[in-house]
Amino acid sequence: MTTPQYDDQNIFAKILRGEIPCHKIYEDDKTFAFLDVMPKADGHSLVLPKNPSRNILDVAEDDLNAVTATTQKIAKAIMIAFEADGVTVQQNNEPAGGQEVYHLHFHVLPRHEGLPLRPQTGKMADNDLLAGHAEKLREALKSI
Amino acid sequence: MTTPQYDDQNIFAKILRGEIPCHKIYEDDKTFAFLDVMPKADGHSLVLPKNPSRNILDVAEDDLNAVTATTQKIAKAIMIAFEADGVTVQQNNEPAGGQEVYHLHFHVLPRHEGLPLRPQTGKMADNDLLAGHAEKLREALKSI
Repeated sequence: MTTPQYDDQNIFAKILRGEIPCHKIYEDDKTFAFLDVMPKADGHSLVLPKNPSRNILDVAEDDLNAVTATTQKIAKAIMIAFEADGVTVQQNNEPAGGQEVYHLHFHVLPRHEGLPLRPQTGKMADNDLLAGHAEKLREALKSI
Repeated sequence: MTTPQYDDQNIFAKILRGEIPCHKIYEDDKTFAFLDVMPKADGHSLVLPKNPSRNILDVAEDDLNAVTATTQKIAKAIMIAFEADGVTVQQNNEPAGGQEVYHLHFHVLPRHEGLPLRPQTGKMADNDLLAGHAEKLREALKSI
């Protein structure tokens, strides 16, 4: 099985190039993190490598290491910023695996006892609400 | 928020010490992979660091790198061994995050178009079936 080629017109590539705005949480040399605009929980974050890769099947080792290190940082920040009881990390590969945008990304989801994840409705969250959540996460990251 | 301490009596610690049998797929210096005995899909694999860590909130960087490298290997092997259309990777932290065993682990789930994951029934899969799946994965790993 061959992984299909990377398409640099995917929406996350456009976000990385600054062609589309996002609620940025974190950035370093190799990774970028921002809020999912259709969050399954408040603070639902996405962590990407800056280098192009479609998913876990084709990503280079150093990019994978960088993206998991940032995923860990964001998970810790989520616990603080949202006083979360737990975190679910999910990473989907290919359509059958649940992948919808073909630039490797890790979902980092704040979880609270007794609160299931929200179903995907296709509706974007309020912009000011997302801005507030991003600010809380950036603030929490200062202590990680 | 402080992560609770690691408990070395968890079932995965016992598997790592060889006190409980498992259907092993892969092992290296730092990681160990075996089949989930209550698979949500045929070939549902678990990847662990050998060093003790409760979850992503307390794992050391080199253990996290090692476990994600092995997760990638298993994902690639799953695509071959099960002729999968995709792979879902999930990593749960703390009870609210879906974690049930408190030794860090990544779930690696083979996915096929139109086939949802099986719900958790609490029923163990047939031992011979699991042995066959583990063998297929070990065979596929030779070509990774």
